[in-house]
Parts: sequence; C-alpha cells; structure tokens
Amino acid sequence: MRYIVHVRQFNVIGLICQVFSVISGHRYISQAAAKIDVDFDYDGPLMKTEVPGPRSRELMKKLNGIQNAEAVHFFCNYEESRGNYLVDVDGNRMLDLYSQISSIPIGYSHPSLIKLLQQPQNLSTFINRPALGILPPENFTEKLKESLLSVAPKGLSQVMTMSCGSCSNENAFKAIFMWYRNKERGHNNVTKEELESCMINQPPGCPDYAMLSFMGGFHGRTLGCLATTHSKAIHKLDIPSLDWPIAPFPRLKYPLEDFVKENQQEEARCLEEVEDLIVKYRKKKKIVAGIIVEPIQSEGGDNHASDDFFRKLRDIARKHGCAFLVDEVQTGGGCTGKFWAHEHWGLDDPADVVTFSKKMMTGGFFHKEEFRPNAPYRIFNTWLGDPSKNLMLAEVIKVIKTEDLLNNATHAGKALLTGLLDLQARYPHLISRVRGRGTFCSFDTPNDATRNKLITIARNKGVVLGGCGDRSIRFRPTLIFKDHHAHLFLNIFSDILANFK
Amino acid sequence: MRYIVHVRQFNVIGLICQVFSVISGHRYISQAAAKIDVDFDYDGPLMKTEVPGPRSRELMKKLNGIQNAEAVHFFCNYEESRGNYLVDVDGNRMLDLYSQISSIPIGYSHPSLIKLLQQPQNLSTFINRPALGILPPENFTEKLKESLLSVAPKGLSQVMTMSCGSCSNENAFKAIFMWYRNKERGHNNVTKEELESCMINQPPGCPDYAMLSFMGGFHGRTLGCLATTHSKAIHKLDIPSLDWPIAPFPRLKYPLEDFVKENQQEEARCLEEVEDLIVKYRKKKKIVAGIIVEPIQSEGGDNHASDDFFRKLRDIARKHGCAFLVDEVQTGGGCTGKFWAHEHWGLDDPADVVTFSKKMMTGGFFHKEEFRPNAPYRIFNTWLGDPSKNLMLAEVIKVIKTEDLLNNATHAGKALLTGLLDLQARYPHLISRVRGRGTFCSFDTPNDATRNKLITIARNKGVVLGGCGDRSIRFRPTLIFKDHHAHLFLNIFSDILANFK
Repeated sequence: MRYIVHVRQFNVIGLICQVFSVISGHRYISQAAAKIDVDFDYDGPLMKTEVPGPRSRELMKKLNGIQNAEAVHFFCNYEESRGNYLVDVDGNRMLDLYSQISSIPIGYSHPSLIKLLQQPQNLSTFINRPALGILPPENFTEKLKESLLSVAPKGLSQVMTMSCGSCSNENAFKAIFMWYRNKERGHNNVTKEELESCMINQPPGCPDYAMLSFMGGFHGRTLGCLATTHSKAIHKLDIPSLDWPIAPFPRLKYPLEDFVKENQQEEARCLEEVEDLIVKYRKKKKIVAGIIVEPIQSEGGDNHASDDFFRKLRDIARKHGCAFLVDEVQTGGGCTGKFWAHEHWGLDDPADVVTFSKKMMTGGFFHKEEFRPNAPYRIFNTWLGDPSKNLMLAEVIKVIKTEDLLNNATHAGKALLTGLLDLQARYPHLISRVRGRGTFCSFDTPNDATRNKLITIARNKGVVLGGCGDRSIRFRPTLIFKDHHAHLFLNIFSDILANFK
Repeated sequence: MRYIVHVRQFNVIGLICQVFSVISGHRYISQAAAKIDVDFDYDGPLMKTEVPGPRSRELMKKLNGIQNAEAVHFFCNYEESRGNYLVDVDGNRMLDLYSQISSIPIGYSHPSLIKLLQQPQNLSTFINRPALGILPPENFTEKLKESLLSVAPKGLSQVMTMSCGSCSNENAFKAIFMWYRNKERGHNNVTKEELESCMINQPPGCPDYAMLSFMGGFHGRTLGCLATTHSKAIHKLDIPSLDWPIAPFPRLKYPLEDFVKENQQEEARCLEEVEDLIVKYRKKKKIVAGIIVEPIQSEGGDNHASDDFFRKLRDIARKHGCAFLVDEVQTGGGCTGKFWAHEHWGLDDPADVVTFSKKMMTGGFFHKEEFRPNAPYRIFNTWLGDPSKNLMLAEVIKVIKTEDLLNNATHAGKALLTGLLDLQARYPHLISRVRGRGTFCSFDTPNDATRNKLITIARNKGVVLGGCGDRSIRFRPTLIFKDHHAHLFLNIFSDILANFK
C-alpha cells in the first residue's frame, strides 16, 4: 500500500521557528507554523539532481516522439507528491507555488481525497461516466448543492457544469447571446427565417453579436474564447477570429499609493473606451451582447485594477444592456482570500455570469435566473462535466470550510506579500511592481530573460514558480500554503537574489 | 461493499436459447449466447414503474430549480447498473442501446475497471490531476502507447489529448490552420505585422481561413465547432457564427441495391459542390484550409455515404491542398466493427487528422507528423485531457482486444441489422431506411411524433433507445452488446410494433 498518509502531531519546522518575521540576516521565519498540528505535507524541498534531471530528459524525448513536448518542464511522481510539494521522477522534491497552473486546490494527495477514493460506494462515480444532461446520477443535485452552490456568488442561483475552462466560457457566451436575442425578440416566437438562416451560419438566425474583451485578457483557446483572449500572440497566430471589440485594460503604476491620480485617470480612460466601443460597434450593426473580464488578468501578466474600476464597468454593462461576465477560472476557488475574487468589489448588482474551472476541479458557470436557456438542449453536450469531479469538489469545499482556508489564504498571502515588498526594497533592480490579493501575488522582473533565469534557478533550489505576461512571476500556491511556506520560499529566494548575476 | 461483481459460469439465457434466428411467432433467439461463460451483465430488463418514475420525477423537479432540466430522461442508479443494463432510481432495469449518447465503451461497472480503481497505486492518478502539457506523470507516454497509440489509424503517429469532443475538434481546426499558414508562408519567419494584427483578431495574423463542413453534420457546440455543425437549428440559433462553406451531404435512397445509379449521382453532385465551394470561397479570399466530415452523420440522422464517396472526398482535399479531418467522436471506438469507422473506406492516403472522444473516455486527436505544431504552447490548455481517463482507456482497450469486441460488434450488428430488416419488411409503414455498420444501426420512422412515441413505449418495456435527425432511431449499444441482446431487443420491439396504434 503506497498511499499511507504521513500524519504528524507536531510540525518540526513550526516548533523550531517561533520568531516572527524578518530577523537579522534576512531570514523569514514563521509564527503561524506551530499551529499546524496535523500535516500531510513534507517539511521542505529536497534536491538530488538539476531539474529536469536525467530521467525527466529521457521521458521528454520519448513523449516528443508522439507530440510536441517542448513545453514540458519535467516529469512528475504524483504518487510521492504531497501537500505543497511536487516530487519529480528524479526524486527531487520541490515547494510548488504554481500548483499545475493554479489548478490544485488543497495540495497533492490530500488525505480527504484519498479516503473518498477508497470508499467503495464512490467507485461507480469514477467508472460510469454519464451523459449528465439526460441521465444524471441520483445524487447529482445534492452534490452540486454541497459543492458549487454552497459557494455560489450572491444572486446567482443557477449553475451548469462543463469539462474545462474554455467550454465554460464558450457556453457562457452562448447563454448570453440567447438571453440577448430573447430580449431583442421581446420573447416572441422564433421566425422561420431565423431557423433557416442559422443552419447556414447567417443572420438573423446567427446574429452579429459580440463579446467585448480587454487587451491582455485570457479566456481560453477555443475559437470563441480565443476571440476574447489577447495575452500573447503565440496563442492567436494563424487562427481565424471574429471582429469583436477589444478595450484597453488599465496599466496601473506601482506603488499604488504614489500614483493615485494617474491610476484613476488610467482607469477612467479605459472605461470611456469601453463605452465608445459599444457605441461604435452598434453603429456598424455589431451588437455587444456581453462584456467579459478577469478580476485579475492572470496569463496576461497579473494585471490588477481597482474595485472601483470593476464597479463602474458593471454599471456600464447594465447601462448598455450588456451582460457582465466575470471569468474566475484562475482567480476563483479561494486564493484571493474570498471564494471569488470579484467578491472583493462589493457590487450592488451581482455579475450576470461567473465562469470557473481549475481549482474547482470541474468547469462550469453560475448565472442569474434570467440567463437560463428557454429550452432544453440549448446549453448541452455529451458529458456536461463529470460527476466524479463534483464528488471530489464537494470534499474539497468541505476541507476549505473546515480548515478555514480562505482566511489562511489572506494570512499566508500577507506573509508572502510583505516578504516580496521587502525583497523589492532590497533588490529594486530585479523586483518591481509587487502586487497581490491573498496568495495571488506577483512581481515584475526587468525582462523576459531575467524572469526565466530566476524561475530556473529557483527550481533548482527546490521552488516551482510560474511566469505570466512578458516579464512577471506569478504565485499560485494551493490553499494549504501557509505562512511557513511563504517564509521558506522567501529565504530561498532572498539567497537567489543576493547571488544573482 | 456494494460492488460485488456477479460472475456466472453459464448464461441462463444462452443455455435456454440455442435455436437460430427467427422462428415461428417471430421470436429472435440467439445462437451465440451460449459462448458467454463469464458475464457480469444482468439477464434481462425488469420494470417496476413507468419511466420516469416517481423518484425520478421528484429529482427532476429539484434539479430544475438550479438548471434547465427539461432534457433529463430519468435519474440513474449507476451503482446498480451493470453491463448492458441501466438501472434507474425507481428500480427499473433497462437494456441500454443508447449508452449515454454512445459514450460507454464496455458497459456499466465493468469488473476490469472496478479492479483498476481498487488498486492503490492508481489512486494518485484520480486525485492529483496534472497540467499535462508541462508536468506529465511518469507513465504518461506509456499509457498513451498502451491506449490511444495502440489503436491509432494507419499513418497517424501523433496524438494530443483533450477534455471533450468539442475541444478535440476546436484544437484539430487550430492545428490545421497553423499547418496551412506555414505552408503559405513557405516556413519563413512570422512577420511583425502578423504578430501585431493577431492580437486584435485581424488578418494577416488571424487569416481568413475556413473549414468546409456538410449540411447535416455535427461536430460540437463551441463557437468554432458550431460553425461546422448543421444538424438542428436548436443548436445554432442565436449564436454568432463564421461564413464558412457548407456542402450538401448525400441523401441516399434505400434499399441501396435498388438505387445504385441514383445514389451514385447524388454522391457525385455533392462532391462537385465541395469543389465548387472551395473555388468560390477562394475567389472571395476565404481559404478552405480543411474539410471536416463524419464517417456516418450521427446526430444529423445517421446519414451514410459510400466508401467510394469518402475516398473521392479525400482526393478532392488533397487536390486542393486542404487538410482532411475525419470526426470519429461518435463513430470511433469499435462499434462499426473496425476501431475507426473510416478504416472501412480503404484509403490509400490516410486522413490527415482524426478526432475522438466519447467511448475513448478522453477527447483528443491523431494527426500526421506534418500537422505537429512548430512551437510549444500553440496547442495547449491547462489540463489537456486527464491521465485518469487515459488509465481507464488503456484498460478498456485491453478488454476490447482480449474479448475480441470488434468482431463481436460485427457479429452482433449483423444480428441486429438482420432483425431490423425483417421488422421493416413486416412493418413498412413504421420502419424504413434500415441501415447500419456493425452495431451502429438505425432506421427511420414516418415522423418525429411516431419516433418519440416508439422511444417512450420501448423505454417503458425496458429498452433505452436514442433518436437522431428528425425521425430516426439510432442504436448505440456498448461493445459488449451481444447477439442475444439484439434478439432480446428485437423480441420486445416486434411486440411493440405489432401493437402500435
């Protein structure tokens, strides 16, 4: 039996390190670690080879024979990976602050999930995958209520599940287009002309509707999503697209407190452009049915905007009759300290549609009741998600609640951000624009080459980091990332920066 | 422990029924059933209530509170479902000839899959879902070789996995567009203009490329896929689309032997239209980069064309420099008697790209080496499928091979088709255009209302059937559907037809 869970009554690191914060020699030490009295985590990185090591390199070569494997960082031993630590096939154990592009909610091999899999009554859910839209399992609604609906954004009573983030956004767009068309129609019957023209991709059946998106945003890679993605050329090159409006997203100056006025002006400029585009596109008979936005542009470089910006954007959407779609695929699930990042904004009127995936284990979207399709099979596909993911998500959400992991994200995020700000003060030529909400933190480096070099060095010192934008490093740890992990990272990274040439 | 597998040395039905085929009173009885000496299947339907029963109705009402649940047929008890039999929450046990829209490969609760789930070394694969494109598990390549690559269509050495059928087609389109653009570019470097224009959805970076599709085809429901889907208006209404060419698909007359010349003419007409459209669209500067086609148009009504039609279509694609994409999402996996339906065609030059999902448990696509993206991250997303599905698929393919399930599909399909032809002869006012390959059979009814009524009656007699097109019934049993299941169905359906008013 290889899945024995490592349970310790006392965390050794925690007992040793009782001194708060930064002490002489710039060591970052945890106060909170002693609180962790049951832990399945490892107690630190352990490096045996450079990464990728010889075994990884061998496997990369093999994989490259059957698909382009140039994006592979290294091969992993998931059986040995635990908590915040990812173990590779060469026996290297790394603190994982990227967590599979932000998609591992409560760490590797969490005891609760192991237990769930070991229960015979759950077996069927993993091997008998149904067509959820027509033949759901008995506990389908119950599991959705235990999982997704128990954390639904305020005002959004409806939920659909999908298999991935792109499908979530694609189907959210469709729900928005149907809603808009029904509004335009005044809920009258569909005409014969509409029914016939839609079969050949033509208006009025396929109306000339658009989603407005922001430069720098990322919403997925299927053709509809890709028309709203504008983070990197490599994602979009050679793929035909749609003429949909693209607004500028604020480029805030840091530190925020020194640029209050400039940043306000920048946000006002972007909002004005949103309104102008809606009007301009309507004039050329292309209707903006919805606006899609990330609470923090993640893939595009961890670009933030103020809560005020988003409240005003929501108002613009309402004013022009457009749906307001918040893409929480990367920001959702608790890492910002609230379950949904957009809950920080304090909206009076909720978002109309909120999409999710990654840490939620299943894709899907929440929406207001008015966005409910008016007939069956309109938002539909064979699988519509996967009940085995809903089952695991229900368990994950139980753990998040029981272990108070939202507050943990706030707390650990503060430890991380404080440390990053300190490093920025000490190494301003290497680190700038430190920013973050919860553990959803990031900073800029001088350029792409430096960023990539820092990521590689960190990996060889036992820390997995991720890049975003053209020169940023993003932190996307799991929800069980604690203060002492932040301090562990900061110690390692501080040394790296001190020796960086 | 609820998962005890029912293993019997002798199949009772098999022992009783040794008489071949149709005997007096039109009972269809199996010769082959006696061969089944180990069986986890039930031995027949068992009905307790009408379907949906009271418990299903109660659950439908609850689900309808959180999403449009009007498409739900009934709720299922998957723990009790086994082999070819689907059990519902009211205790009804039905012979399932639709198998979750053709997505269950080797029946419910197959002992091999139960065993797989019970092995502790597989646990990690189900709970630690990686970002496959950057951090694959150690056995990733090995599992792909054991599963997908062991059944790869001839000439297609490369494979990518995806989470669902729509993502498979969307990404196949992208691979085709990139391939085409590289051809046009002459493999020179990308220009600055391309890199800049693609960020705002404009040519030349986002070129005006198209996929040619067929009227009646179904290739998924995300925006790119939907532009090639033309089966039913309800799928397409209100969703903006792309001006991509749509060719007619042959409408063959049955019985085929009576309409040889007419059908040849019909196929020639459609092929001519394909060529005309390619030329016409090029003239308006819209380049057909690829042609997508199903070997049998499934959702659109089980429309067949001859092997000759497809060979000629492949030739047209080559002649005009278009990629030839065969969508095997529904036809693939063995139900036609070959692993891929297009293997029946005897192509000299293989298809360029073949997409799959459903019975393959994971989505994805095979392709020729020349369609390999020329850089990492171009065909990419967070999950890129799911190793837990690859693990199960490897086991499923082992079962298909060990139990000779392709030949079984041919054999059982013949039993089914022979019986359907007999029913057609006896009830020509109710059944027409009987057609099929392997167990992938179907017939037409006089109209939509009759079709739906027949499906409902059959369900209440213990047989789950599916509709397609506007008046067809399609058979999509699992691969462990045997002759005796065909006879069981034919007996029940014969009675239904005899009493149909």
